[in-house]
Amino acid sequence: MDTRAALLTQRVVREFTDDALPTDVLTTILDAGRHAGSSKNLQRWAFIAITDRGVLRRLAAVGDYAGHLAGAAAAVALVTPTPGPGDPLSIMWDLGRCAQNMTLAAWAAGIGSVPATVYGQPLCRDILGYPDDHWCEYLLSFGYPADAADLTRPPRAGGRRTLEDLVHYERW
Amino acid sequence: MDTRAALLTQRVVREFTDDALPTDVLTTILDAGRHAGSSKNLQRWAFIAITDRGVLRRLAAVGDYAGHLAGAAAAVALVTPTPGPGDPLSIMWDLGRCAQNMTLAAWAAGIGSVPATVYGQPLCRDILGYPDDHWCEYLLSFGYPADAADLTRPPRAGGRRTLEDLVHYERW
Repeated sequence: MDTRAALLTQRVVREFTDDALPTDVLTTILDAGRHAGSSKNLQRWAFIAITDRGVLRRLAAVGDYAGHLAGAAAAVALVTPTPGPGDPLSIMWDLGRCAQNMTLAAWAAGIGSVPATVYGQPLCRDILGYPDDHWCEYLLSFGYPADAADLTRPPRAGGRRTLEDLVHYERW
Repeated sequence: MDTRAALLTQRVVREFTDDALPTDVLTTILDAGRHAGSSKNLQRWAFIAITDRGVLRRLAAVGDYAGHLAGAAAAVALVTPTPGPGDPLSIMWDLGRCAQNMTLAAWAAGIGSVPATVYGQPLCRDILGYPDDHWCEYLLSFGYPADAADLTRPPRAGGRRTLEDLVHYERW
């Protein structure tokens, strides 16, 4: 898929078919995240790729809006050093750049995705086993859209603020 | 450019030719940022697009590693509500996703980019005029690479951690 088309058509997908992701496609998604730029090239991230249905179902309980994980073909837990009150903002900025690479790689392969915010850190840590000095603020669900029209449907009118509303030129 | 190619070849570019970005290309970059997903679709961002050489030169002083702004064809200041100590991590996570869309749209058009972290918030606010309850943590420099080979050169060996180092399966 052309890059510009991917950027302009990508939408959130929360419901997926039962089809598994081919292993090479999952690797492509992870590799796209690996290639993302990061502040001082620190790459403060690790990825836990989950395809086991039982684990995905358990993960659906880590947040109020994480139910989509139960039906995902795969999830990727994005693990960082635990962000403290004095930490730079760049950990999450970098992680967002990394996640966007992953979701765009998926989209270009006909795969939808949606992030989940982890509210229950102890539960998430218990399920996934990452160390105490690490943190998982976000998981990504991936899968083929239950409604294939998601891949081609035009964006919802009014779903995004307009350029006129967002953009200033030279000065606010 | 194919999406996967864009994701795997994108590299940071800090030195640019004197060529201006066509207006429609700058708009395409901003529009790609506009389309990014955000937590609860809050879109907590505004963009200041700067092409005035005098302003770009002044902006080069907002951070220790912001010198590239002086030579950029354009910069985009990413403005958010001021992040406070109790704020969710999602403001910067969303902003990273938005920025990645912009830099990929640029890359697909043969345009390089690099982020700058703002250390001097008062100076940046003075130059750009955003309100006191807003914040600019990052600016993006854009331009045609001074060395056109940047667009096709293979990634530097060892520049990224390996998948084996980064990825866990099912559990840490």
